[in-house]
Amino acid sequence: MYQTGMREECGVFGVYNHSDAANMTFYGLHALQHRGQDACGIMAGEGGSYDIHKGPGLVHQVFRDDILQTLTGSIAIGHVRYSITGGSHFHNIQPFIFNFQKKTFGLCHNGNIVNYEQLKEKLEQKGTIFHSDSDSELIAHMMSKDVYESPIDALKRSLVQIVGAFAFIILLNDELYAIRDRNGLRPLSIGRLEDSFIVASETSALDAVGASFVRDVRPGEIVRIDTSGLHSFSYTEETRSELCTMEYIYFARPDSDLGDMNVHDFRKRTGKKLALEHPASADIVMGIPDSSISAAIGFAEQSGIPYEVGLIKNKYIGRTFIEPSKHLRDRAVLLKLAAIRKVVRGKRVVLIDDSIVRGTTLKHITHLLKEAGTKEIHIRIASPQITHPCFYGVDISTTKELVMASTTKEELMEYYQVQSLEFISLEKLRECSFDQGLCTGCFTGNYVTDIFNRDAKEQ
Amino acid sequence: MYQTGMREECGVFGVYNHSDAANMTFYGLHALQHRGQDACGIMAGEGGSYDIHKGPGLVHQVFRDDILQTLTGSIAIGHVRYSITGGSHFHNIQPFIFNFQKKTFGLCHNGNIVNYEQLKEKLEQKGTIFHSDSDSELIAHMMSKDVYESPIDALKRSLVQIVGAFAFIILLNDELYAIRDRNGLRPLSIGRLEDSFIVASETSALDAVGASFVRDVRPGEIVRIDTSGLHSFSYTEETRSELCTMEYIYFARPDSDLGDMNVHDFRKRTGKKLALEHPASADIVMGIPDSSISAAIGFAEQSGIPYEVGLIKNKYIGRTFIEPSKHLRDRAVLLKLAAIRKVVRGKRVVLIDDSIVRGTTLKHITHLLKEAGTKEIHIRIASPQITHPCFYGVDISTTKELVMASTTKEELMEYYQVQSLEFISLEKLRECSFDQGLCTGCFTGNYVTDIFNRDAKEQ
Amino acid sequence: MYQTGMREECGVFGVYNHSDAANMTFYGLHALQHRGQDACGIMAGEGGSYDIHKGPGLVHQVFRDDILQTLTGSIAIGHVRYSITGGSHFHNIQPFIFNFQKKTFGLCHNGNIVNYEQLKEKLEQKGTIFHSDSDSELIAHMMSKDVYESPIDALKRSLVQIVGAFAFIILLNDELYAIRDRNGLRPLSIGRLEDSFIVASETSALDAVGASFVRDVRPGEIVRIDTSGLHSFSYTEETRSELCTMEYIYFARPDSDLGDMNVHDFRKRTGKKLALEHPASADIVMGIPDSSISAAIGFAEQSGIPYEVGLIKNKYIGRTFIEPSKHLRDRAVLLKLAAIRKVVRGKRVVLIDDSIVRGTTLKHITHLLKEAGTKEIHIRIASPQITHPCFYGVDISTTKELVMASTTKEELMEYYQVQSLEFISLEKLRECSFDQGLCTGCFTGNYVTDIFNRDAKEQ
Amino acid sequence: MYQTGMREECGVFGVYNHSDAANMTFYGLHALQHRGQDACGIMAGEGGSYDIHKGPGLVHQVFRDDILQTLTGSIAIGHVRYSITGGSHFHNIQPFIFNFQKKTFGLCHNGNIVNYEQLKEKLEQKGTIFHSDSDSELIAHMMSKDVYESPIDALKRSLVQIVGAFAFIILLNDELYAIRDRNGLRPLSIGRLEDSFIVASETSALDAVGASFVRDVRPGEIVRIDTSGLHSFSYTEETRSELCTMEYIYFARPDSDLGDMNVHDFRKRTGKKLALEHPASADIVMGIPDSSISAAIGFAEQSGIPYEVGLIKNKYIGRTFIEPSKHLRDRAVLLKLAAIRKVVRGKRVVLIDDSIVRGTTLKHITHLLKEAGTKEIHIRIASPQITHPCFYGVDISTTKELVMASTTKEELMEYYQVQSLEFISLEKLRECSFDQGLCTGCFTGNYVTDIFNRDAKEQ
Repeated sequence: MYQTGMREECGVFGVYNHSDAANMTFYGLHALQHRGQDACGIMAGEGGSYDIHKGPGLVHQVFRDDILQTLTGSIAIGHVRYSITGGSHFHNIQPFIFNFQKKTFGLCHNGNIVNYEQLKEKLEQKGTIFHSDSDSELIAHMMSKDVYESPIDALKRSLVQIVGAFAFIILLNDELYAIRDRNGLRPLSIGRLEDSFIVASETSALDAVGASFVRDVRPGEIVRIDTSGLHSFSYTEETRSELCTMEYIYFARPDSDLGDMNVHDFRKRTGKKLALEHPASADIVMGIPDSSISAAIGFAEQSGIPYEVGLIKNKYIGRTFIEPSKHLRDRAVLLKLAAIRKVVRGKRVVLIDDSIVRGTTLKHITHLLKEAGTKEIHIRIASPQITHPCFYGVDISTTKELVMASTTKEELMEYYQVQSLEFISLEKLRECSFDQGLCTGCFTGNYVTDIFNRDAKEQ
Repeated sequence: MYQTGMREECGVFGVYNHSDAANMTFYGLHALQHRGQDACGIMAGEGGSYDIHKGPGLVHQVFRDDILQTLTGSIAIGHVRYSITGGSHFHNIQPFIFNFQKKTFGLCHNGNIVNYEQLKEKLEQKGTIFHSDSDSELIAHMMSKDVYESPIDALKRSLVQIVGAFAFIILLNDELYAIRDRNGLRPLSIGRLEDSFIVASETSALDAVGASFVRDVRPGEIVRIDTSGLHSFSYTEETRSELCTMEYIYFARPDSDLGDMNVHDFRKRTGKKLALEHPASADIVMGIPDSSISAAIGFAEQSGIPYEVGLIKNKYIGRTFIEPSKHLRDRAVLLKLAAIRKVVRGKRVVLIDDSIVRGTTLKHITHLLKEAGTKEIHIRIASPQITHPCFYGVDISTTKELVMASTTKEELMEYYQVQSLEFISLEKLRECSFDQGLCTGCFTGNYVTDIFNRDAKEQ
Repeated sequence: MYQTGMREECGVFGVYNHSDAANMTFYGLHALQHRGQDACGIMAGEGGSYDIHKGPGLVHQVFRDDILQTLTGSIAIGHVRYSITGGSHFHNIQPFIFNFQKKTFGLCHNGNIVNYEQLKEKLEQKGTIFHSDSDSELIAHMMSKDVYESPIDALKRSLVQIVGAFAFIILLNDELYAIRDRNGLRPLSIGRLEDSFIVASETSALDAVGASFVRDVRPGEIVRIDTSGLHSFSYTEETRSELCTMEYIYFARPDSDLGDMNVHDFRKRTGKKLALEHPASADIVMGIPDSSISAAIGFAEQSGIPYEVGLIKNKYIGRTFIEPSKHLRDRAVLLKLAAIRKVVRGKRVVLIDDSIVRGTTLKHITHLLKEAGTKEIHIRIASPQITHPCFYGVDISTTKELVMASTTKEELMEYYQVQSLEFISLEKLRECSFDQGLCTGCFTGNYVTDIFNRDAKEQ
Repeated sequence: MYQTGMREECGVFGVYNHSDAANMTFYGLHALQHRGQDACGIMAGEGGSYDIHKGPGLVHQVFRDDILQTLTGSIAIGHVRYSITGGSHFHNIQPFIFNFQKKTFGLCHNGNIVNYEQLKEKLEQKGTIFHSDSDSELIAHMMSKDVYESPIDALKRSLVQIVGAFAFIILLNDELYAIRDRNGLRPLSIGRLEDSFIVASETSALDAVGASFVRDVRPGEIVRIDTSGLHSFSYTEETRSELCTMEYIYFARPDSDLGDMNVHDFRKRTGKKLALEHPASADIVMGIPDSSISAAIGFAEQSGIPYEVGLIKNKYIGRTFIEPSKHLRDRAVLLKLAAIRKVVRGKRVVLIDDSIVRGTTLKHITHLLKEAGTKEIHIRIASPQITHPCFYGVDISTTKELVMASTTKEELMEYYQVQSLEFISLEKLRECSFDQGLCTGCFTGNYVTDIFNRDAKEQ
């Protein structure tokens, strides 16, 4: 079924001037796999001649040896994609390729454009047809008229109209463009490896291919990479850095640096602040693997309560599981997570989680812990209460699905049957980022941009 | 690598108003599989909501059970595709889906548009971006402006500008459009099954789903199928039926009827005419399986020389074979075809083939027959000498690759080391079609339309 | 579920002394694919060190490039298998490998051993454990005691006890053994390619790898192939050649020679005899593809009634099809076979089939022909009435499933709604084989060996 | 290539009397996946009728939905397998199925039999043929003579002769047998779920299916599970519990209990002992994920040095990777592991690893840490120096491959370029197990059994 305004979290990667560009992109996307596991694609070539391969699945599933070998050339861009719909929508898998005036240009996008409908309507009135139902395609049509004569002008003219979150990597005329929205809502970093340039959603992907970090693309900046190196252009003066808080809290890899702050460090700070703001009387501190481990260590350090490993993950989880019988279905969470009985039995546990969205996973885990003999559970959440949807590319698109929008802390505590439940305050969270701006729309409802017909988007 | 003007032979199929439309299309495409084995796709839905699946491979490989079940709705269109390039160009696999003004429309095309470059340039000057590098996408952009308010007008205005070969199935506003070019170069037939309508490249696909033949779409006709039935529109007065001769000679299934003539019957007539025009003194008549069997039977009937099965095909040929060692590579043709020694040994054989393009297959087969002890070989070809490329969707795109364009009959006889080699004359071939018009451009160089910058196309 | 006495038709192939033995076997098995499509395997090596790969599927599906490359060495044996059960019984897929006294030996078997239960019981009383539930494993255990010191003696002692149908290829001590039962019920031929020897179920597989035919393994013969060439041993004096008639009628490829008779020739003779024995007044003669084409041509030649192609097969049939809706299920036969309406409409047709087992396929085809407008149908069967089961490896194991065992010709004619139905007589069939002995147990109930507890086998 | 005495680490699982036995086994094997990722199999059934499926790959890859559904019945056994050879040796994948006297019995084995050659030779002298080249098959042949009349006697008579490590699950006459060697070298636990019994290599697999722990199978014990419950038999009086130390140190999941000791707890104790025995002056303590995390936490707790997460794993590692170019190959370790620069830069790090076998992984990791700016590295190993091979089923089969057998601690420190390198002493390790017996053969060369021709085994 076709849906408009599909929201997704994604990862983008680009290589300029490397003999092995598609292979590099393969490894880069692999390092960004946590940002999207549903589909991926790589476009590679040089001299105006490009080829592409994409499909549903993980990077190493889609790009078998024989396929990767067909992608030659010194320039490549790639994309990993998570989608909330399960279908095999090939036409939405990126990179997108467009043909215009006998040339090919390619596009990768991470983020979500909020005035998509408005811009699309304007284009359609002029007869533009869209191939995908993704907002990402928009920029290509907006700049089509003079994309080749004056790409920078075309980009500027187009970008200034686009409201929302975007990190674009665009391949045009054998030049690579790396672009971020005026608020820098989605991350995009530049690296260097000898004579090659790399662009990636996270610095961990730069590390993965051995590139050294150069700098982040700045909010509102267009970086063009060509044979003479990096060139910086600005398409707007009105910029203010407000990177998505959830990138720090949940999405990014702990070894990535976002805006010069290490993600693991950030998370550890949230744990420390939590320990100060909401102390607990307990025997051990545990985090829910993997994203809450850092905060749990911070909490333990600050509080002096020993950090323990009370939950372990099965690392051989396949992506899909067979529909089990009733008895086994009830135990499905055990396929992914198991409690170490001897660790938790009879203990008062501080259980750290990064955030509460629907609240169902925590229900399973608290049940698991109690079944294993835990005496008390004190939940501490390393982000404030998420009470508003995100319109910038995170898959929490309606207020309805957010348990904290309609439930009190007390009701949830009752539901989980735990001894206490506390969230870090927004104030303390801000301290964790020092003076770095953060988008906190999902906690406050104050979004960094206009949302354009918000009611329709929440349907 | 991106190429413009990619030529291909394809099959199209559409279902209107059947509860099982995608399944029907699956079976219909399966019956059209001989028209394209590289890739296929099905788009299905109703009420403005459509989904699609497509990929490289045969119909039963691409559409596994679970995938087909996701394609619901009472309207469906599908496509099988053969491409001269080996790449995995997802963006060229049809049906194409376009989004415009919150609606979706779908397109399947068989044929080749010769003024593609000219029309594309005009659109690009207005800023249109192409997603595929296929000529098929053109019609969508041409009619975009008023596609929904007045589809018939938009179609008429667009189609009249398009020169070349096309059989289109278009899905728009929950209506199905079936369209042929003014010369009817590519076939398209309409069938009926109770309250459902079916459109297909060949009547054998109608039979495969149990539909009865209604009529062919006429040259220059737009047929709209909607809730009130079939509606006919004409976009030009200048029509003349000139169906591709190679459809009769080689492409179509023998159980299909094209222009009210059965394909097997047509081929048999070519064999009879050949026997009269170029008799041979021989012991047996054999055809190269499968496409030359009908002509061989006709030759045998007319000449009184017994028809024999001297060559058999291995029906378990996989699509790809491992690179064998030198010894085995030389025997590769034996994987597909084997001679029955006891049948051919010591015999004077009339060997019927449908056509000579590159001439290499016949070299292998004559070698095979001589190795099996054939005494004499008299080759009879059921089509005239192919000396000119085709610009209407058949994959013989350059004069260079046509052996008869640069070689005399005598030289080829010498190369094959056979006793005689004769082609049916164009005159006799025309007699086989009675008064039906045929495109004979590949034999004569007289094409039914302007070719538009032919030199560039032959590169 | 485990079943004893599983019956199957198979193909075997072996290569001795070729640098590319596994690849050769791949191509040989491919040429024998018609003898078994359910599973296949190749064992290859030399110097006492062997490796194996096997699995369910067609040869080119099971042996992908990378897998075939792991099978090195100059000796190889392979097997294709058809099984009546659908399960994935890996332990029944051949070649079988056994380990004994630090050596490995391999085994491929085509046929069925009728005193399997008796021999197995004797071995089990001595403590032998069976790994598969296939009769093929028997020979390995019977000869185990002195398999290495005196292989020929061990083979002789074992083979003389085995009753039934067998063509064995055994790999032992880097020597290849090719063996046939005393009646030669299953075929096995020897070929030569320079310094290499090839053994195969059919001569067409020798042709496929470019080997020249040397001779058949004789009934009751053990052929040992070693560094000094071919060596012949006899394990019994009581031999009488009685090759399975159905090999000629149905199983073997038309380009194979069995017992010095070409299969196509044999089939053609059955058609001619049929025309003399049971003439018909008709307009055209048609055979059901592929196995009845040869007989149909013979009938046409003898009768003077024109041979026609009225039924065509879809060559792209996948192995499994999706469960279609009711309407489509009724049309399933159309997926495989289609009638050419213009050929059969209004005609009196002689329809040749090779045999009648369950009788259901002919029901579909006669229905198909009548739906296409056939005026009269005269069925002629190129084998006598099959009224008794086969215990020698053909999958007609119970009287119950044989329509002719319980139905009269007249009843079947009525069921098919055809104008006439005739079978070749056993006497005339014998004339087709000249003085060659044939097993005709399925027509007469007179089997060439004792059947051993026949009632139990028919369950 | 065939090898004798192949060593492997495996996991076994069995279910008795559960309506969903194969599904239960699927989940149980999934929880044991860390014990073997190369291949797996499940045999299921009841009433003497069993079916099996097995193949190379992970549990969720081999057992797709449709396959699992074919495995019905209330009894099932399963096996996951790790093999040191990469080949696709189907005949070595367990469960093994044997047929004897019209009955089927099944076998799963974890461990390694050291007098395999001797026992095999004795059987071969009596004519026994082996199907696999695995030692696991032995027990079936040894007990064959009276396996059905008196299974317990047959088992006792056989087991008393077998020397080495074994945990067997045997399915016989619809009864399940769970057996451990006299030293209990490999673990095997019994669980209960309502009326069903479960047997599994580790208690975590009991947890995974919701079963409660009953007790371990005791060294030298045969447990028979039948319709009347558990029955215990002893096949030898000479038992002494000496469970493999590496099960605690490395193999088992931290949430499993072995011999009533929790694995995570054990590992944590090794870390604490290490901190006391070999303290280090450092800023942070880190463990190599995943198996060294527990010991690192113990070290941190004891030493007071903060525990940190300095290395993270990519959880999307596919099993095979494409051969990268030189530059990328050098970075292969980064695909699996990444250092968090901000955590380790400028720090003095205590790096905990569970053991040193070949020593190459630690070389990569120390390089990685230094590249990330680590100031000092102090390696602490949670097991003593491994200087001798294992003959009981762990894949360290030759002295040659053990770096500590030929290298001094100082040389290795030099090679790693680290500031210190220390191993826990055997004495301290023993303290971690309290009074529980442990096999420490790989540290001392003192094996718990005779090794039988050790020189040949070390080849």
